Amino acid sequence: MVKVGIVGGTGYTGVELLRILVNHPDVELSVITSRSEEGVRVDDMFPNLRGHTDLCFTVPDAATLGACDVVFFATPHGVAHALAGDVLAAGAKVIDLSADFRLQDAQEWATWYGQPHGAPDLLPQAVYGLPEVNRDAIRQAQLIAVPGCYPTAVQLGLLPLLENNLLPEQMLIADCKSGVSGAGRGASVGSLLCESSESMMAYAVKGHRHLPEIRQGLVRAAGRDVALTFVPHLTPMIRGIHATLYAQAPGLAADLQALYEQRYADEPFVDVMPAGSHPATRSVKGSNMCRIAVHQHAHTGQIIVLSVIDNLVKGASGQAVQNMNIAFGLAEDTGLRQVALLP
Amino acid sequence: MVKVGIVGGTGYTGVELLRILVNHPDVELSVITSRSEEGVRVDDMFPNLRGHTDLCFTVPDAATLGACDVVFFATPHGVAHALAGDVLAAGAKVIDLSADFRLQDAQEWATWYGQPHGAPDLLPQAVYGLPEVNRDAIRQAQLIAVPGCYPTAVQLGLLPLLENNLLPEQMLIADCKSGVSGAGRGASVGSLLCESSESMMAYAVKGHRHLPEIRQGLVRAAGRDVALTFVPHLTPMIRGIHATLYAQAPGLAADLQALYEQRYADEPFVDVMPAGSHPATRSVKGSNMCRIAVHQHAHTGQIIVLSVIDNLVKGASGQAVQNMNIAFGLAEDTGLRQVALLP
Amino acid sequence: MVKVGIVGGTGYTGVELLRILVNHPDVELSVITSRSEEGVRVDDMFPNLRGHTDLCFTVPDAATLGACDVVFFATPHGVAHALAGDVLAAGAKVIDLSADFRLQDAQEWATWYGQPHGAPDLLPQAVYGLPEVNRDAIRQAQLIAVPGCYPTAVQLGLLPLLENNLLPEQMLIADCKSGVSGAGRGASVGSLLCESSESMMAYAVKGHRHLPEIRQGLVRAAGRDVALTFVPHLTPMIRGIHATLYAQAPGLAADLQALYEQRYADEPFVDVMPAGSHPATRSVKGSNMCRIAVHQHAHTGQIIVLSVIDNLVKGASGQAVQNMNIAFGLAEDTGLRQVALLP
Amino acid sequence: MVKVGIVGGTGYTGVELLRILVNHPDVELSVITSRSEEGVRVDDMFPNLRGHTDLCFTVPDAATLGACDVVFFATPHGVAHALAGDVLAAGAKVIDLSADFRLQDAQEWATWYGQPHGAPDLLPQAVYGLPEVNRDAIRQAQLIAVPGCYPTAVQLGLLPLLENNLLPEQMLIADCKSGVSGAGRGASVGSLLCESSESMMAYAVKGHRHLPEIRQGLVRAAGRDVALTFVPHLTPMIRGIHATLYAQAPGLAADLQALYEQRYADEPFVDVMPAGSHPATRSVKGSNMCRIAVHQHAHTGQIIVLSVIDNLVKGASGQAVQNMNIAFGLAEDTGLRQVALLP
Repeated sequence: MVKVGIVGGTGYTGVELLRILVNHPDVELSVITSRSEEGVRVDDMFPNLRGHTDLCFTVPDAATLGACDVVFFATPHGVAHALAGDVLAAGAKVIDLSADFRLQDAQEWATWYGQPHGAPDLLPQAVYGLPEVNRDAIRQAQLIAVPGCYPTAVQLGLLPLLENNLLPEQMLIADCKSGVSGAGRGASVGSLLCESSESMMAYAVKGHRHLPEIRQGLVRAAGRDVALTFVPHLTPMIRGIHATLYAQAPGLAADLQALYEQRYADEPFVDVMPAGSHPATRSVKGSNMCRIAVHQHAHTGQIIVLSVIDNLVKGASGQAVQNMNIAFGLAEDTGLRQVALLP
Repeated sequence: MVKVGIVGGTGYTGVELLRILVNHPDVELSVITSRSEEGVRVDDMFPNLRGHTDLCFTVPDAATLGACDVVFFATPHGVAHALAGDVLAAGAKVIDLSADFRLQDAQEWATWYGQPHGAPDLLPQAVYGLPEVNRDAIRQAQLIAVPGCYPTAVQLGLLPLLENNLLPEQMLIADCKSGVSGAGRGASVGSLLCESSESMMAYAVKGHRHLPEIRQGLVRAAGRDVALTFVPHLTPMIRGIHATLYAQAPGLAADLQALYEQRYADEPFVDVMPAGSHPATRSVKGSNMCRIAVHQHAHTGQIIVLSVIDNLVKGASGQAVQNMNIAFGLAEDTGLRQVALLP
Repeated sequence: MVKVGIVGGTGYTGVELLRILVNHPDVELSVITSRSEEGVRVDDMFPNLRGHTDLCFTVPDAATLGACDVVFFATPHGVAHALAGDVLAAGAKVIDLSADFRLQDAQEWATWYGQPHGAPDLLPQAVYGLPEVNRDAIRQAQLIAVPGCYPTAVQLGLLPLLENNLLPEQMLIADCKSGVSGAGRGASVGSLLCESSESMMAYAVKGHRHLPEIRQGLVRAAGRDVALTFVPHLTPMIRGIHATLYAQAPGLAADLQALYEQRYADEPFVDVMPAGSHPATRSVKGSNMCRIAVHQHAHTGQIIVLSVIDNLVKGASGQAVQNMNIAFGLAEDTGLRQVALLP
Repeated sequence: MVKVGIVGGTGYTGVELLRILVNHPDVELSVITSRSEEGVRVDDMFPNLRGHTDLCFTVPDAATLGACDVVFFATPHGVAHALAGDVLAAGAKVIDLSADFRLQDAQEWATWYGQPHGAPDLLPQAVYGLPEVNRDAIRQAQLIAVPGCYPTAVQLGLLPLLENNLLPEQMLIADCKSGVSGAGRGASVGSLLCESSESMMAYAVKGHRHLPEIRQGLVRAAGRDVALTFVPHLTPMIRGIHATLYAQAPGLAADLQALYEQRYADEPFVDVMPAGSHPATRSVKGSNMCRIAVHQHAHTGQIIVLSVIDNLVKGASGQAVQNMNIAFGLAEDTGLRQVALLP
């Protein structure tokens, strides 16, 4: 049994981790922390967990956390910077769902997050937890940075093109649509039902924090620079990311369908849909699957990739558990075989 | 392994059965039928099942079905009347999710469904599949009638009062709110997103087909006649039933909280919430749980019971599998331990 | 032209007042206040108003407000207590959308709102602004208390029964369903899309602040005491209240349809639907109409009244403007002829 | 008074026309037709119209329609082909909301709609009813083809760039998101709440019927060929289109904000938002406004235009009435000053 701790269990990635882990056959949930909710039963806050766990929130404490085999951070940025070092030193692995260790460049992190990087010394050992790219490194990792939701959907959608150097000019567009849970469980006017339902809007066109993370991943895959325009949109639904990806490839004659199918043939959580498909986010709601369809526009030759995930599962907590499974030598899909809830 | 057949797998209770059964450790999915979709892969129609099953729809055939251990009917009313006899004769158990065998009185069935009862000879062996009432009979049953969604929520909410004869005058009101999936997957104008979202309305105030079924169950529990006013409402969400139940009990001094907790202490799928709670349907979304809170109005003495289920799980397919588990001697919650998807 | 001021224009009733008033032919919008948004253009906060008004929020000031013909308060409770006196003294009428002057009993107000009543001296002149009951008084009023949303839907649904003394035992039940905008525009976790969409729940079963207001109105209509059980529910939509009202009338032989039609024959904003109807809240979305259907249950004799309004229009800002029209001798439906937005 | 007829009033554009026209001060609604609903009161089908009209549906008849001043067609494609000629011959103007006369090339129409063009002889007199481009022609027109919803949002978003020849290579991308009402009121599984809510998906990536219409408009504006990739998405809301438009303009130094503001300075229904804005579809819900924001991506230089409309108003019925106002010499915004319903 893997002894698990969770730091910051009161947000949506926290409760989603719990949903997955309480039914994980190889996990013993040992501790869950929240400063603000100390002493409160977890299932008082999240009644869907009634009957599944008796845990109460406790104040985070490095010793208790260090006694776990692995500690998940489901916290706002900056928290893992402060705590991860101690937890690692105590011998536990750290799987961080926040952005703290996603960017390899501490200076770039500081620019986008508006504060100095709090643990640049840990960056060399941080492994970017996208199993489809980094599975071997994840196996050995002590510190895993779970990718963001948009970065997961976009990178999985574009990797086959970039890894095979199929795009002569790499002017890429990622038009992404996210459910409101991506904004978290904090009380903000913009996330109220009355503000965000029955409406669609773009946001952060000037620059979103996931942009440098996506670019870092695409540059790695391409082996050279990449120009990316990324426009996120707030979509009136709870869960789901739909990435619509555009790439120009004048005269490209490759069999894109075969290319994608081969790239992901052995991946348990990437499903290349039949040619001509239009994956819907509901086909992955509550599941760890990423479904992808690749099209080429008859008239313009533009490549159009449709990539959908559940932002809280493959885009966060499910992928975190997938990383844990790999890091502890378990079958990669243990505890992650849930079928999407449809309808 | 229990060899399972499903008749009529193209509706919402059908795909929900599949969602549960593909991960059930003791089940082998053997056959699924649909006349209209013969030859189509199940996961072409329901992409959430991609990677979980290779089955194709076939035309229903009594011999193939009879070779199963159990056959689920997820069909419109009348179909099980026509087919169940042959399947039973071939030695398979039948678990019927339709209304065909829920009412013990064939004449009453004919009145509410506008056609003669098609299999009155099977009625004596039909067991009403509400485990919280009929667990022993279900163990022995060959033919199980799975309760309707409203009847499940309402009966579980009122049983403790009626079984204990606490209501001197039994003028009961069930004000019920259902998600739109209760109307099924048929193409009808009233179930369009543009007709049913952003709106709330009552329907069938004059009389709904679930009324006689609920009354039959309440009368059994009370041991005498019961006056029930039942008003269903269409609610702008996919899943969930919220039953708000009103009962008059002038001068009643019983400890209702204790009464409910005791009644359901050993039930794996009924959760009596702490005193003063307001269960939300999302706390059971995708799970087989029924959550109940009981209140008594300070000013009027009125008893108010709040009872929530997922209409497609505890109100249909989950309860059907719960019945199967009981009937085949499996642990009652096998394959049914999913945590509700929240948010 | 009626010169209008609005105190507290940043909430949903405020923006709804503006939506109606910018197109009102007899109104000159003179001032709108908000301490927190001083200097901000109203249409920067509410872009739907771009092109319709150039107003900026200012700090509330009794002199400026007093120079108006009428001042609307769209504020949290307590604010009108503090300011209304000065505004009235300066000669302006006050139309208060908050709860400050709805209850005639200052002590009862203090009990329910948890603080002393701030202006008990004004209560004798406060007119309860339900035009269907108080039209003549409204015509003369200086201080009008606009009814709450639930109280409007419930009272309009029950008045014909109570005024005609048709209910021998007055054990009434109001099972009410409200859209989330009823909770206001404040940032609270419970009103987030991810918390309140795809779910249904009751709340405040123990007692809701609208209960004494409803009871006050029903007692006035009945001329004697009334026992009322009121259960509000949070419904996953933006606008709309659906009140389902239950009344026992054993042996009642009145023609309820005719009774309701006669009662409201001359009312511009109450629409008695044909017998057997089920009004949907979307049929009044954005309009000032209340639609009502009355049923009697065949089996139990229970009277069931269905009453729907838009909580922000007839339940707040539209009714406030209706009061203004009456108080200033304008045609009662001036500026209020909008057709509900369907779909 | 303009005497108005409507052919095909049972769909969403039909009821939306009615919503606008019943409050239009210069219109007399004379006749509304529907073969399937003959004799039914319009407000029986659409209860939001109760109290606003007494009309009943009648069978379409060229003589009756020809006696009107103007006839709106809110019909599936092909119907206006068959009827418009007779109506025009009788002296009435025709404003067609369907696609029948939008494409100037009858052969292209036949290709996209899968049937021969039914009235190619009328094409020379058909005026494309986008007032921002064709106002003068609309003034004189007898036959007006109201633009489609996507084409309206996309053209208004791109016109300033194309008319000023600012894009050296015209590889344009229109990533469009539409509410479900765009799919009409027909009963189809894909438009059910349970299929289309809580989900996001692209559709018709291979080619959508609005593509040739958009291209026709862009080519006119540019004066040369245009390469356009158009990907529509089904979005879980009732109303609204959000067009996110991408254009490459390496090295472009124009002041795009000023360019857009100047282009639309005199347009009553195009609102260029302040620099840096992100218009939400809810800011135009129920109104005839198109709101636009223009951005240029700091890193890639890509121009990003955000353009939002209500698909049933500016994208259909509102624009139709705007055309009528122009064609009959009325103030262009008569009957169209509604403020968007927010929240």
